[in-house]
Amino acid sequence: MNLLLLEPGELAGDGTARLADRRARHVVEVLRAAPGDAVLAGVVGGRMGEAQVLSATASEVVLAPRLDRDPPPPAAVALLLALPRPKILRKVLAATASMGVKRLVLLGSWRVEKSYWSSPLLAPEAMREHLLLGLEQGRDTILPEVIVRRLFKPFIEDELAATFPEPARLLAHPVGAAPLEALAPAGGRAALAIGPEGGWTAYEAGALAERGFTPFSLGPRVLRVDAAVPYAVGQVELWLRGAAR
Amino acid sequence: MNLLLLEPGELAGDGTARLADRRARHVVEVLRAAPGDAVLAGVVGGRMGEAQVLSATASEVVLAPRLDRDPPPPAAVALLLALPRPKILRKVLAATASMGVKRLVLLGSWRVEKSYWSSPLLAPEAMREHLLLGLEQGRDTILPEVIVRRLFKPFIEDELAATFPEPARLLAHPVGAAPLEALAPAGGRAALAIGPEGGWTAYEAGALAERGFTPFSLGPRVLRVDAAVPYAVGQVELWLRGAAR
Repeated sequence: MNLLLLEPGELAGDGTARLADRRARHVVEVLRAAPGDAVLAGVVGGRMGEAQVLSATASEVVLAPRLDRDPPPPAAVALLLALPRPKILRKVLAATASMGVKRLVLLGSWRVEKSYWSSPLLAPEAMREHLLLGLEQGRDTILPEVIVRRLFKPFIEDELAATFPEPARLLAHPVGAAPLEALAPAGGRAALAIGPEGGWTAYEAGALAERGFTPFSLGPRVLRVDAAVPYAVGQVELWLRGAAR
Repeated sequence: MNLLLLEPGELAGDGTARLADRRARHVVEVLRAAPGDAVLAGVVGGRMGEAQVLSATASEVVLAPRLDRDPPPPAAVALLLALPRPKILRKVLAATASMGVKRLVLLGSWRVEKSYWSSPLLAPEAMREHLLLGLEQGRDTILPEVIVRRLFKPFIEDELAATFPEPARLLAHPVGAAPLEALAPAGGRAALAIGPEGGWTAYEAGALAERGFTPFSLGPRVLRVDAAVPYAVGQVELWLRGAAR
């Protein structure tokens, strides 16, 4: 935990916050903070800054946060992912939030196993928990918006355009496409699509290409989604900034 | 498993291989391969190609691999990592191998907890297992060389130069450094250093900087090592290729 996140309702009228859950234990046991020490804190959806520890016992911590700065600017990449299996989804949610990605669509695809859709992890509260862990890791306060759509075709036809207004659209393709440096970056922001294990079907890749998602290669290897997401986001961020020069 | 890896000793004189472990189960239960089907196979340290399934039962699979191609070329990046905690190390080993990185140094640092060094995961056989999983994922046959050094100073002073002959040396730094696009890439290959949770100490970062490891920023956020590694490797690969244009 690099940032202690408070829910807006946890700030009392005098500006202090009283914690008695895993966050309090973290402050006491991991950070070993004592009264007078400061920890980095933020409010979900709001500002962040140093928080003075007013008291710290095994069961309760009282903080006085001074929320004097904005969270870091959002990442320049929005993500369209074929729903990964739950074990991987958990990591992808946290990594997505930690990288500052602010929009994530989890989409059905022919190669997404039906059982994945019944994962309890897809409950909004469960996703939120993993996203918060990612924000704590990345020192950010702004939750990504996560959109879950089981049916590929209606999403692509009816919602894709409005969901991804980014001027650049990219499709990470396991093999055969040109590398990113062969493409001219445009517009400073990008939507990035990453397929399921086994890849999008030809129909799916075609439907995305028709809507401006340009395939690019991540290299000759096939990365697991939890590695492919940061690998591709890192590349696209650099590629977009190269354009800004 | 995107590639079925055989040990060199598993190839019989007639060029067939007989498997009865998790790989056989994978061929039967996940790939649902039947006699006559082909699966992608390779020999650890050697070549790869399609393998015809000669027989497949619940307990045994016999393959006839045709090893007619070389594995993909190695990644352009070698890694120097502060030893992560075991849970993360497991992922980092597999991700490193899947990305085609061929040299990985796991180094001590002031902020590496002592207990990490007693992890059973550091046994060569345990590391090899996770590296093989990564090779299977990434469709590669060449194991990375992993060098484990508990003491920072002797490694840096006596071994660093010979271990990392790459012309470019980079140090991913959480905050304050210039982004990668501000640096002029050199030489087509790079050594990349990534610190522990909490970062290198000033002494450690200084000792690396003195030896040519130029700090660069991964952005305003702090990524967990299992996300930072693919994020940074993806960026450095693209940056090096930008230089090659």
